[in-house]
Amino acid sequence: PDDLVVAGQSFSSRLLVGTGKYKDMAETQTAIEMSGAEIVTVAIRRTNIGQNPGEPNLLDVISPDKYTILPNTAGCYTAKDALRTCRLARELLGGHKLVKLEVLGDEKTLFPDITATLESADILVKEGFDVMVYTNDDPIIAKRLEEMGCVAVMPLAAPIGSGLGIRNPYNILTIIENAKVPIIVDAGVGTASDAAIGMELGCDGILMNTAIAHANNPVLMASSMKKAVQAGREAFLAGRMPRRRYASASSPLDGLI
Amino acid sequence: PDDLVVAGQSFSSRLLVGTGKYKDMAETQTAIEMSGAEIVTVAIRRTNIGQNPGEPNLLDVISPDKYTILPNTAGCYTAKDALRTCRLARELLGGHKLVKLEVLGDEKTLFPDITATLESADILVKEGFDVMVYTNDDPIIAKRLEEMGCVAVMPLAAPIGSGLGIRNPYNILTIIENAKVPIIVDAGVGTASDAAIGMELGCDGILMNTAIAHANNPVLMASSMKKAVQAGREAFLAGRMPRRRYASASSPLDGLI
Amino acid sequence: PDDLVVAGQSFSSRLLVGTGKYKDMAETQTAIEMSGAEIVTVAIRRTNIGQNPGEPNLLDVISPDKYTILPNTAGCYTAKDALRTCRLARELLGGHKLVKLEVLGDEKTLFPDITATLESADILVKEGFDVMVYTNDDPIIAKRLEEMGCVAVMPLAAPIGSGLGIRNPYNILTIIENAKVPIIVDAGVGTASDAAIGMELGCDGILMNTAIAHANNPVLMASSMKKAVQAGREAFLAGRMPRRRYASASSPLDGLI
Amino acid sequence: PDDLVVAGQSFSSRLLVGTGKYKDMAETQTAIEMSGAEIVTVAIRRTNIGQNPGEPNLLDVISPDKYTILPNTAGCYTAKDALRTCRLARELLGGHKLVKLEVLGDEKTLFPDITATLESADILVKEGFDVMVYTNDDPIIAKRLEEMGCVAVMPLAAPIGSGLGIRNPYNILTIIENAKVPIIVDAGVGTASDAAIGMELGCDGILMNTAIAHANNPVLMASSMKKAVQAGREAFLAGRMPRRRYASASSPLDGLI
Repeated sequence: PDDLVVAGQSFSSRLLVGTGKYKDMAETQTAIEMSGAEIVTVAIRRTNIGQNPGEPNLLDVISPDKYTILPNTAGCYTAKDALRTCRLARELLGGHKLVKLEVLGDEKTLFPDITATLESADILVKEGFDVMVYTNDDPIIAKRLEEMGCVAVMPLAAPIGSGLGIRNPYNILTIIENAKVPIIVDAGVGTASDAAIGMELGCDGILMNTAIAHANNPVLMASSMKKAVQAGREAFLAGRMPRRRYASASSPLDGLI
Repeated sequence: PDDLVVAGQSFSSRLLVGTGKYKDMAETQTAIEMSGAEIVTVAIRRTNIGQNPGEPNLLDVISPDKYTILPNTAGCYTAKDALRTCRLARELLGGHKLVKLEVLGDEKTLFPDITATLESADILVKEGFDVMVYTNDDPIIAKRLEEMGCVAVMPLAAPIGSGLGIRNPYNILTIIENAKVPIIVDAGVGTASDAAIGMELGCDGILMNTAIAHANNPVLMASSMKKAVQAGREAFLAGRMPRRRYASASSPLDGLI
Repeated sequence: PDDLVVAGQSFSSRLLVGTGKYKDMAETQTAIEMSGAEIVTVAIRRTNIGQNPGEPNLLDVISPDKYTILPNTAGCYTAKDALRTCRLARELLGGHKLVKLEVLGDEKTLFPDITATLESADILVKEGFDVMVYTNDDPIIAKRLEEMGCVAVMPLAAPIGSGLGIRNPYNILTIIENAKVPIIVDAGVGTASDAAIGMELGCDGILMNTAIAHANNPVLMASSMKKAVQAGREAFLAGRMPRRRYASASSPLDGLI
Repeated sequence: PDDLVVAGQSFSSRLLVGTGKYKDMAETQTAIEMSGAEIVTVAIRRTNIGQNPGEPNLLDVISPDKYTILPNTAGCYTAKDALRTCRLARELLGGHKLVKLEVLGDEKTLFPDITATLESADILVKEGFDVMVYTNDDPIIAKRLEEMGCVAVMPLAAPIGSGLGIRNPYNILTIIENAKVPIIVDAGVGTASDAAIGMELGCDGILMNTAIAHANNPVLMASSMKKAVQAGREAFLAGRMPRRRYASASSPLDGLI
């Protein structure tokens, strides 16, 4: 089977989803179920997974028995905060090693702070975490994060929450071509075709949150995204026809326009 | 159910496929089955559906009991040829009224000859055919073909066999906004995301042939296209999030870049 | 010299401009002067060039001694109106034969009505007019208008007044490759780079109005457009480098993404 | 006047050019003269500006009396090499402080090594250099380089030598919006419209080499680029019309497609 393998674990779904921005817990649950996702990422600083006893606990609706919970460091702007958040998550989840590291550079764009990301990733890997890491779409940085021991590299397609789709497919493609670990597009997908495009480039998976949660109908959009990721994956594996100006053209497009 | 309705008939699949360019009849059959298509278009001038007794008959593998056969006039460069071909198809298919009209303008681009298309469509409608019509992406022409009585209008996304995807989404969108009959993108789709984009714009269906038949693995691409069309349809119905420069932007993109 | 030749007349500028939408006559005059345009198009149904004696006359600021006045049929939705307008223009301009024909299809998009355009063009050519003709970007229609005797074919880049730039460069390129008369992009240019792109494709000229008149500073935008058209022309003649994924790539882009 | 000011010096041209890849010194000289550039960048590791006595010296044709020579560290893959190259340049050019720092990450893409770039920039600034710095298009990194004291930040539009144009205009725009020092697009421009697009975004200048040197006619392309940069600058200052789907649309594009 064509599984996504991250840190030795196999997943049949290549769609990873977040839990933020939904109307309520019921919508979160239904949409995530409909998405078919097996890995669900949770912002530890914003979501109660047990650190606030007596408040509603996300894990009651998104059960760790059913889903692989991927704690993330959303909202962390320094290496220190990100490290503390990962360690807290490990404790809350009973020694769970898989985390998604994001260290943000500013509140406006939510771009990563690459220097602090590199620094944190290095420490987390040494502390035994399995680090999936949010980064920009710079191929050199992506390779360095892989070499450091991250288990998956997660370049942004476009700014978090923008819905702009893959702004720079060539960069994503270069990252993929250079990689030995899974490359998972994280952030920026806005609709089904964006997800398909990511998979057609050869990404190993797509992580999204706003595109589902802020659709008019999140549950239906979750279903759409499930199919879009599968469609994109199959198109990648099937090998698309070349692009030509016409059927009768003797060669594919030549780079002049 | 969210059916495609053409000339009073309901179809649960919004993917329409052609039968040309496959390696052999077996591949044609398997790919079409995998695509989930219910409407299969056949080039009467190139494909034997009974007019050449003793030769292999497409209808033996693509049975009219299972599929709606949509005879088309591919290869016709004049109104006269197109009309003759439609009448022949009606005869071969026992009075079948549904046809796909295409009158081509030249061999290089396979763009439609709009004048001859308008003329032929008018005659065919008057002769009682249910005319699905291949056209360019000009919204005024599309509306005229609808007003003339065509049962579906089929603008090209890009030249036939090019795989370039939807070259002018604004035109397709304008055609859709003006229409009361189904708008089905015909020609130019190259990969799964192209099909999804068409459906996200609000097209009622997509017709394709080369994108499947000329993929490295046509059967897998057929499966991909089935999902891509569904994903795009669901994304359209679900209502996508707006595109913004960042999550924190107070308004969507403003048209300046 | 690298002149634009239309109906036997040579022009050193390849930028053609309209006269509508300016704040006042003084701005019209200054902007047009700054644009370096030699051909200035005038909407006969909206602009007084003598038919309303006693009212301000555009020709007082845009002198026919200095500019080639190109009367156009903007606002005409039927062949009859367009023909009458051209004949009126000829009379007002003392037998002037050069006209720009546009027959519009609807008020929303201002797309041409191709059927009425073909019909009017044919009549005008036979009446001895030198017809420059506004059309969609369909290569078959463009060729037919040329064969009919039009002296220049003017495909839209995007809807009139949209500022969307060249929506379908492949169509424009195909029109250019097929043509023996000048191809002048008419409508849709929004900023300098749009004009440059048109010229880089090999267009013989660009006609614009709103992009200049509705800039915040029309006179400065006129200067920009003058340079952009020259830059695009020179880039076309100079022959651009091929597009490659990197400097070290051994071949140009291959049409797969 | 609308001057580009870098490190306190004013320049009337916003086009910066390189000296590599020309057929011969004569072509280099003529093309650069035609480009109107006042700042000319020189790869110290590849070009003799005096370090190899007895060999042809670029400064004989590109005189420091006429041009501002901008030594660059092209070909350096480590901070150490880049620092040594800058110091050598300062010595060769009699104490000249202005340098263009580039530290490359790999030979395939020629993307910058951001970590080594940050490290080198910091040291060079402290040693009193005026550092113009080649970087990726990450807005957080660009801001950090500015804060460190670089006199200009030079994000890539696309890989060096690719001619792909500005791959991610939103990133470039964000860099510009955040900046107090000049932002100069460096690398990736392929033709005139690419340069115009960069300037329309609000870049303070464009640096290019291959787009001119590898055009079929480099001298004519140099002239084109001069005009394109001016046209783009004027369009930026003039303030373009908004993009709308049609002239009759009541509001600009809304971010849905």
